[in-house]
Amino acid sequence: MRRVLVTGATGFVGRAVLDALARDDVEVVALSRRPRPAAGAMLRWRAVDMLDAPALRGAVAAAACDTCIHLAWDVGPGYWTSAANLDWLAAGATLLRAFREAGGTRFVGAGTCAEHDWTGIGAAPVREDAPRRPATLYGAAKGALWDVAAAYAAETGMEATWGVVFHAIGPGERAGRLLPSIVAALDAGQEARCTAGTQVQDPIDVRDLGAAFARLAASPLQGRVNLGRGAPASVAEIARRVAARCGRPELLRLGALPARAGEPARLVPALARMRGELGFAPRHDLEDSIAAAIDWQRAQGADR
Amino acid sequence: MRRVLVTGATGFVGRAVLDALARDDVEVVALSRRPRPAAGAMLRWRAVDMLDAPALRGAVAAAACDTCIHLAWDVGPGYWTSAANLDWLAAGATLLRAFREAGGTRFVGAGTCAEHDWTGIGAAPVREDAPRRPATLYGAAKGALWDVAAAYAAETGMEATWGVVFHAIGPGERAGRLLPSIVAALDAGQEARCTAGTQVQDPIDVRDLGAAFARLAASPLQGRVNLGRGAPASVAEIARRVAARCGRPELLRLGALPARAGEPARLVPALARMRGELGFAPRHDLEDSIAAAIDWQRAQGADR
Repeated sequence: MRRVLVTGATGFVGRAVLDALARDDVEVVALSRRPRPAAGAMLRWRAVDMLDAPALRGAVAAAACDTCIHLAWDVGPGYWTSAANLDWLAAGATLLRAFREAGGTRFVGAGTCAEHDWTGIGAAPVREDAPRRPATLYGAAKGALWDVAAAYAAETGMEATWGVVFHAIGPGERAGRLLPSIVAALDAGQEARCTAGTQVQDPIDVRDLGAAFARLAASPLQGRVNLGRGAPASVAEIARRVAARCGRPELLRLGALPARAGEPARLVPALARMRGELGFAPRHDLEDSIAAAIDWQRAQGADR
Repeated sequence: MRRVLVTGATGFVGRAVLDALARDDVEVVALSRRPRPAAGAMLRWRAVDMLDAPALRGAVAAAACDTCIHLAWDVGPGYWTSAANLDWLAAGATLLRAFREAGGTRFVGAGTCAEHDWTGIGAAPVREDAPRRPATLYGAAKGALWDVAAAYAAETGMEATWGVVFHAIGPGERAGRLLPSIVAALDAGQEARCTAGTQVQDPIDVRDLGAAFARLAASPLQGRVNLGRGAPASVAEIARRVAARCGRPELLRLGALPARAGEPARLVPALARMRGELGFAPRHDLEDSIAAAIDWQRAQGADR
């Protein structure tokens, strides 16, 4: 039976990956600084601080997995420019070697649209082979990890693939991100101040993203694979739908905040590889993602 | 007075950099696993294993330098494909952050022609902006470190430059590399079996390379800067000159070994930035490099 190592398993995407893997016939070892109660016989948690290289090497050797889904990264506030990106690049490099030397044969990592050269992006969907020239340390560090993963895999006969996430939406997003902050404001009866949101994105439901990473782990596909829903929408449209679903559309203030500099007018993934070679089709539509996200957030609030 | 941190200071290039810095009015802190006796009042050695991240952070913080010349890397036998490249990428990422957070303002690193896409290289010298698509883990890891160094520098207001070494020659090269193995064979009265050596390179004298890195450290130049001599020669010509200088030209066997796959017929750096913007001109010609290398090697043998 396959044994899958998952890093970042307590994160937004990681939790969805664990849910997806629970439907597969695989053993899972989840690494985390904050292990959770095991969710089933097929899932074991192992406590480790991945930024402690010797501890990481020990945990990965003990896990003895054939497949790795590496999601761990610091994506807290300010993550685009945080020096923590350097630490997570170092941790990723350490993980690659430890995983391979423990017998690992397939490495799956999480990439980002921020690896690409945003200045050259037009209206067309961004293909996997589009130029990569990151404008941020986050994009540079992610791209650097993929570069060495691909080279190391090629030289050792390991398989490596990189699921490139453009945007994600759905249950479990951390407070402060766009959707949770709109919901928090509206549910408190306050205005939700946003940018104009004219930029078009293609956010995939995080539950589909979890399923896509599980599929990538089980497939023999190599190289970069864009992940998306294939249903682009402007940020303004998403925000209006969120506000409508919250029942307080009149409190949404689009254009109250200045646009973030440097963001392309349209930043959506080309999905031919995901659909054709990976054979993956997302199941959740945008309305479903929004409803689930709001339900999750309100349930969290009720728990407190 | 400037304070310069030098990593890899006991290596082939590192020793030449220390010699060059000794002629400048700077304080130097040299990091090494194997510190040497201090060579003067302006040079302090600090013992540290750079692959031990907490120890590296501590040493870099204590050094409190404004400039860093980062040369440390594993370039022992098999380094093109060694997994140690991943460790040195991790160490480089850790160093970047520690250096900046200790007040560092200028980072100088050592790049390699192996970062470039060798399949697309023709007869023209390779410019700094030539496509980078490494065929080896060594090239990928070096390129990855430069990518994050440039991004981190841009985001924190630090200066970063990358002295890109194509080939180097001169006193102090480790046993097993081309020139030392020819000299060792001929001095033992044995045949020196080489490839045909038709490929053309532009090896810079290591003493000039040391001076070039010292110049890069003192200059405000940013970005990638190719380093070379500007006097291309085939590997066969270099080998013939070495054999002639050793006095045993009849023992040289060019073509006795198969060529290394994937090496371009001509791999020489474009030097406009080095000459124009850095204002640097190498002083040693090829004959001088060969003579000094042979003298050094024979003196080493005499020491044993």
